[in-house]
Amino acid sequence: MSLHPVLNAQSVAVIGASKDVTKRGFQTINTLLEDKYAGKIYPVNPKEKSILGLPCYAKVTDIKDPVDLALIATPARTIPAVLEDCGQKKIKGAVILAGGFGETGRDGRKLEEELLRIAHKNRIRLIGPNTSGMINLQENMNLVGIRNAPKGDIALLAQSGNMALTLITEASVKSHKGFSYYVGVGNETDIKFHEYLEFFREDPNTRAILMYVEGMREGRAFLEQAYKTTLEKPIILLKSGRSSTGKKSAGSHTGALAGISEVARGAFLRAGIIVIENSDELFPVAETLSSLPPIKTNTVAILADGGGHATIAADILTDLGIDIPELGEKTQQQLKEILPAAASVVNPVDVAGGTDADPTIFAQCADILLKDSRIGGVLLVGLFGGYGIRFAASLRFLEEDAAHRMGKLVKKRTKPIVVHSLFNSAKPHPLELLRYYGIPVYDSLEIAATCTAVLAHYGNYLKKYHPKDSFVMNWHSHRKAAGSKIIANARAERRAALLEPEAKQLLEIQGAPVLPDRVAKTADEALAIAKEMESAVVLKIVSPDILHKSDAGGVRTGLKREPDIRKAFKQIIDNAHRFNPAADIRGILVSPMAKSGVEVIIGTKYDDQFGPVIMYGLGGIMVEIIKDVAFRVLPLTLSGARKLINETQSHPILDGARGTAPADKKALQKLLVLCSELIESYPEIAEMDLNPVIVHEKGLSIVDARMILKEEE
Amino acid sequence: MSLHPVLNAQSVAVIGASKDVTKRGFQTINTLLEDKYAGKIYPVNPKEKSILGLPCYAKVTDIKDPVDLALIATPARTIPAVLEDCGQKKIKGAVILAGGFGETGRDGRKLEEELLRIAHKNRIRLIGPNTSGMINLQENMNLVGIRNAPKGDIALLAQSGNMALTLITEASVKSHKGFSYYVGVGNETDIKFHEYLEFFREDPNTRAILMYVEGMREGRAFLEQAYKTTLEKPIILLKSGRSSTGKKSAGSHTGALAGISEVARGAFLRAGIIVIENSDELFPVAETLSSLPPIKTNTVAILADGGGHATIAADILTDLGIDIPELGEKTQQQLKEILPAAASVVNPVDVAGGTDADPTIFAQCADILLKDSRIGGVLLVGLFGGYGIRFAASLRFLEEDAAHRMGKLVKKRTKPIVVHSLFNSAKPHPLELLRYYGIPVYDSLEIAATCTAVLAHYGNYLKKYHPKDSFVMNWHSHRKAAGSKIIANARAERRAALLEPEAKQLLEIQGAPVLPDRVAKTADEALAIAKEMESAVVLKIVSPDILHKSDAGGVRTGLKREPDIRKAFKQIIDNAHRFNPAADIRGILVSPMAKSGVEVIIGTKYDDQFGPVIMYGLGGIMVEIIKDVAFRVLPLTLSGARKLINETQSHPILDGARGTAPADKKALQKLLVLCSELIESYPEIAEMDLNPVIVHEKGLSIVDARMILKEEE
Repeated sequence: MSLHPVLNAQSVAVIGASKDVTKRGFQTINTLLEDKYAGKIYPVNPKEKSILGLPCYAKVTDIKDPVDLALIATPARTIPAVLEDCGQKKIKGAVILAGGFGETGRDGRKLEEELLRIAHKNRIRLIGPNTSGMINLQENMNLVGIRNAPKGDIALLAQSGNMALTLITEASVKSHKGFSYYVGVGNETDIKFHEYLEFFREDPNTRAILMYVEGMREGRAFLEQAYKTTLEKPIILLKSGRSSTGKKSAGSHTGALAGISEVARGAFLRAGIIVIENSDELFPVAETLSSLPPIKTNTVAILADGGGHATIAADILTDLGIDIPELGEKTQQQLKEILPAAASVVNPVDVAGGTDADPTIFAQCADILLKDSRIGGVLLVGLFGGYGIRFAASLRFLEEDAAHRMGKLVKKRTKPIVVHSLFNSAKPHPLELLRYYGIPVYDSLEIAATCTAVLAHYGNYLKKYHPKDSFVMNWHSHRKAAGSKIIANARAERRAALLEPEAKQLLEIQGAPVLPDRVAKTADEALAIAKEMESAVVLKIVSPDILHKSDAGGVRTGLKREPDIRKAFKQIIDNAHRFNPAADIRGILVSPMAKSGVEVIIGTKYDDQFGPVIMYGLGGIMVEIIKDVAFRVLPLTLSGARKLINETQSHPILDGARGTAPADKKALQKLLVLCSELIESYPEIAEMDLNPVIVHEKGLSIVDARMILKEEE
Repeated sequence: MSLHPVLNAQSVAVIGASKDVTKRGFQTINTLLEDKYAGKIYPVNPKEKSILGLPCYAKVTDIKDPVDLALIATPARTIPAVLEDCGQKKIKGAVILAGGFGETGRDGRKLEEELLRIAHKNRIRLIGPNTSGMINLQENMNLVGIRNAPKGDIALLAQSGNMALTLITEASVKSHKGFSYYVGVGNETDIKFHEYLEFFREDPNTRAILMYVEGMREGRAFLEQAYKTTLEKPIILLKSGRSSTGKKSAGSHTGALAGISEVARGAFLRAGIIVIENSDELFPVAETLSSLPPIKTNTVAILADGGGHATIAADILTDLGIDIPELGEKTQQQLKEILPAAASVVNPVDVAGGTDADPTIFAQCADILLKDSRIGGVLLVGLFGGYGIRFAASLRFLEEDAAHRMGKLVKKRTKPIVVHSLFNSAKPHPLELLRYYGIPVYDSLEIAATCTAVLAHYGNYLKKYHPKDSFVMNWHSHRKAAGSKIIANARAERRAALLEPEAKQLLEIQGAPVLPDRVAKTADEALAIAKEMESAVVLKIVSPDILHKSDAGGVRTGLKREPDIRKAFKQIIDNAHRFNPAADIRGILVSPMAKSGVEVIIGTKYDDQFGPVIMYGLGGIMVEIIKDVAFRVLPLTLSGARKLINETQSHPILDGARGTAPADKKALQKLLVLCSELIESYPEIAEMDLNPVIVHEKGLSIVDARMILKEEE
């Protein structure tokens, strides 16, 4: 069901309406009246006749006309009954303010499930519970009571009322921008982040979506929706709860599956989301992205009237991966013509006093810079806007002229200008003018530079967007009958894992290159198999009761001579019996020793929030000591596999270190994609571990494979 | 000479005084008069009779009374003559505003050297050139013309006039704090950073020192002075010019040896300096450190009236290494007594509405928290100061009461409280009160949390300060006659490097464990030496003309049998002749093969800004691929060596990875200290490379050693 009747409700029943000015049941009605909400307002309270001049109803079912939305301001325990009433009245949505649900523990969780059941049954969509409410600023439907929230084109989705209040305050104090909607998602009991996202993607009044997230219930659906949305509208997201204390705090706060998962950041970025780490940047970045065209070339020119600011800006942009290229010769020539000899016309451009008497020179410089095809945008840093304050009052008019010209320039060239001014807090008129044209101004260099960089990050994303990339799993897509049989067999034996030979077989069935190993029941059989192999062999125990073979003394490597193989066979069997006298021993796997190469590990698992993910890393010391691994949400394409490999710090080892030949990265990429397909094809597999895989100069060897099955439902 | 007569001048001559209101020669006099500078002001300009009512002199030598300081506002080329005049007048200091010196290239550099020569001759101390000037706010001596700079106890040293203006503007707009001095150090031609530091260390009006640095001429002297200063007063420093573009920008800006060296950050931290990366944090951190007692326990309690802020604050503090411990049982009990049941009394403390009707509860909570010995300070986040705005106007008085109580609490417990308030921009009175008590308030959570963390970082430093640590080199301290002879011998042969056997000998003389290797002139000699060694041997060419032995085919390893040794000997000689037919071959070094162990590398060099530094890293892939090395300014103590080793990401390898025995870290630490002493003892050595050193389970082997000598003067 579309969220339209909920978020754009034409009539609101306030359940728990009150005459007490300190109560939400009073404040909400008061705000709706003061803000001139055009829809109908129905106070509901059995004890009152009228509130603020509106007739009051004992129950929602007493209201004659249809009602779109209920704001429920009563305590947690009363809400199931209230919701049943709403259902009878065919109310389409409810905002539930009260806390006291999943975030408080087991009893609360039960009550929350009860709400959801009643809501489903009655086809009521729920916002919250445990929320500060929602505001539709287009229709003056303010169900929160935050006063003077500025209207605009940014939709705000937040899991903290205080963070919403912070962002709304910041917007009204420091910018010309505002909000189309605010929704406090609360416990995400019914309506989930991705549904709000879909609504805002389609909403014509919304140009950017700002999110404060502590936890997420359906991360995969969110990624899918975000992936569609970011092509049209930027999403700016801060996810808190990184630290263990932060996680605990978030858990007690939202009751959601809290805490940032190690895959979240990468997955968000892949979906085109602008991920913010510093809460000071959250609103400015949304302001910038909703106002200015993205930078298409990843290049920025810094325009400064002083060296210190230029240096700091260059550092920040460089740290954020933005190029600050030298300017074209023609550009330099043109700048020289209007700037004094002492000016730096390379990049950063330092006007060196050239604007002291005439700040319109800034507009001329910006014009010259944006004409240069090497330059994707301009970051102006320093005193602009304050020349009328710092030098001579009359300069203000020239600054105003410059502001008009820069504003028009941005439209003409569809390239952005972002401004840092240390006079921003004095609110001079030229800076107001810039904001009128959608050019944001910050008194923080850090923030101005970050916003500029983010315009390039978003531009890069749009340019590199690949329609083949996807967050949608094609379940069973490459499934084979033989593979199903292996799993069915393990299930029939009530096993929680595949045996190593089974796991390898399954990999082979899916097309992976697997060493020609076989299971021997006796030492003679092992010898016969070893003879066929022309290299030394490895013997490994095969038992459903021994998952970690080495720990049980169940592995012997580098065996060549007959007596060694016999001895090893016996030892392994003895060790296994000693390790677990009841172990069901299926035999011993005889494998050829793998050729040398680079050791890597590949793993898959199901993430609580994002579902199937893959882990990749270089083996040995890199994994054990440096923990140098990379994660990615499945499914994986070949180019995704390449990126995954390159995300590890030690990846150059694959290109050949210390004179060794380069490893077969193509084969490794293929294997990663195959792992992705395998997980898609056999949803029964909960976890897979290929450790190690040896990548040779040509091809690779999967030395060990472990697959754990999901519990049967 | 003390800087007292310069920075506290009782009389100022303004050379280049002017009647033109746009000129510094006018503005400065005007500002001095308006600010009521108590000293004498002497305008100097041959063309004017009087300026702003003051008699004007043709030359400084025409002034009858003594003059402490000259502000020189004339162009670069005129300044040598002006300085000679100042010398004649026995003026003690000069502030030179003009640019056009070292920062512009060779000619400018020459002119700058000329200035310094004249200044030295005449015993004039110089501030600048290429500076916006200096302000002594205690004495209203404002030689910059920035209006309304707030007075206070922070000394500001900056290499950018605009950054100074930014910080001064920020202070006046956002805080109650201000400055004791501002000095624009400019090109550091004469007075260097460390001299200003010494002055501010002794200045009774200065409680903290704030620095913006792009480059530094005498880093070592700065470190020594900072190391003394930070015990008494905090130094807060932002060094820009990290990126290559930033470096270029800084170079063209200050003309200093620009750019951050890889050792700078570590060295600054070791000297107790608070190093800031984000310019938004620069002033707030100085404000906090100059106002509040440091945190002694590295523990902070977060006190919040909403979950979102608490979560973000917890994340930031954790990222910055601060503990957020659970509260003691008694503390929890006391909090429970005054907070509602829904409140979280662990840490973060969330009052959960408990302050809505009475914000003095915040002061009660803070009191309970600071009484807990586990807690070193409190970070209050959320709406405090805005209860009178957001809820009911009368709550403002309760907030004021709370502010008074928290202010007194900080003094009583000598533990800090830092406040984040999203209502800060509304400037409510309760927040003004907090500032009156020295409690800083920020509308940025990021900044409030960072300031809190920095109080703990500074507290940690003071606690862990070790008087044995030092930045002073004891030149020649462990020098031996035999070592001097080796160097003298190389010098006599006009060699730029020691031969490998010489370098190893020198290490042995200083007490390093060296493998018993010897130089053979013939294959027979090599064989005889090899026989004495009971292991396989390595043969290496010894020639002053072959520095990189492997590149010249001059190394053969793992030789055991006679024919192999003979063959290798011949090949090496042949290769050397082929590599460089004119090479002077001194023989072939025969060394035993080193036992197995962990490969590390040690290097030393002279850093442009900080002098002798040491580099340490794990060898092989770690250095080649991951560039996992750590740097440290010499000299090094044993505990410094331990820290250096632990700074590398891969250091756990030394503790034994994949079942190998742990390496002898003690021996490695000793060798690092020995390297430090060696560099102290033989200042002739410009660079040293021990690569590899193999660290065994017991002891270590220096497999190769290279030492390059400084050019003779």
